[in-house]
Amino acid sequence: MSRQSNRTTDSKKMNAELFTLTYGALVTQLCKDYENDEEVNKQLDKMGYNIGVRLIEDFLARSSVGRCQDFRETADVIAKVAFKMYLGITPSVTNWSPAGDEFSLILESNPLVDFVELPDNHSSLVYSNLLCGVLRGALEMVQMAVDVKFSQDTLRGDNVTEIRMKFIKRMEENLPAGDEVHSRICVPC
Amino acid sequence: MSRQSNRTTDSKKMNAELFTLTYGALVTQLCKDYENDEEVNKQLDKMGYNIGVRLIEDFLARSSVGRCQDFRETADVIAKVAFKMYLGITPSVTNWSPAGDEFSLILESNPLVDFVELPDNHSSLVYSNLLCGVLRGALEMVQMAVDVKFSQDTLRGDNVTEIRMKFIKRMEENLPAGDEVHSRICVPC
Repeated sequence: MSRQSNRTTDSKKMNAELFTLTYGALVTQLCKDYENDEEVNKQLDKMGYNIGVRLIEDFLARSSVGRCQDFRETADVIAKVAFKMYLGITPSVTNWSPAGDEFSLILESNPLVDFVELPDNHSSLVYSNLLCGVLRGALEMVQMAVDVKFSQDTLRGDNVTEIRMKFIKRMEENLPAGDEVHSRICVPC
Repeated sequence: MSRQSNRTTDSKKMNAELFTLTYGALVTQLCKDYENDEEVNKQLDKMGYNIGVRLIEDFLARSSVGRCQDFRETADVIAKVAFKMYLGITPSVTNWSPAGDEFSLILESNPLVDFVELPDNHSSLVYSNLLCGVLRGALEMVQMAVDVKFSQDTLRGDNVTEIRMKFIKRMEENLPAGDEVHSRICVPC
């Protein structure tokens, strides 16, 4: 499915429940399609990546976010602007590594799992793994290679959901100069 | 995946784009899984049905909607309350049949297709067919059997998207008396 060239940037606010249940249908379908949870996790990450590389353009168009000064600012933009915009929640940013290249997003609640309990036979399923892919894909489009993974999950009995993000490297810009997206990139120092 | 018993009814408002792209990933996956568009359409309807039978409870809990007096009121509730709540749009209700048992929902815009163009080899795909299933499933839970289908679709070059809804029959209540959902049902005269 390719993107329409004439789509508008008008914002449609919606409750999360239809999304939550549709996401559940997607995960259920992948559990039918693939042999084990690890494969499903990979597919969710891959799908999320493809979503992220598209969503970043929408995000930059809607938000007034410009070039970030450092990884800390990037973390704040992800938590306070991006999560708020697309999931209606604002995770807290915490657990910074001494080097400032790793942090955690703590989700007090996760809209994706509102209707969900993991069956016993899917103990390795990272149910919300799509989100890791989205973050990875979106940040790659603004020249940041990051590692993203769930380190805690309420679905597995943890008290909170924690997404751990690690900065790997700044990527080279390979697209032509003057590209719309790349004129507004977020890069760490 | 089963529903958590302790979920709250707090409302998380979100922009539609992440949902739109996630729905695209679901349809793309189904196109990989099934041999032809007709099978994909069926699966989308089936998934939608399963979503609808769950979503109705959320809808009744969030909205202050009580028992509808007739099918016209049901149509208005679907368009003005349900679509607004879960997709952020308000379709117009039109094209009533003389008997008052059929109407159309006209969607000036459809958030599900914001990023989509149908490839030539999927000319029979009813891309947004999940919505028909959702409506069918939700209404069945309030004892209304309806037939729901897309009769126009901007993805196929039509000017608007039109969902045609036909009332079939009122269903018997088979659940125990006093059930939470069924104490607040919408039924036509």
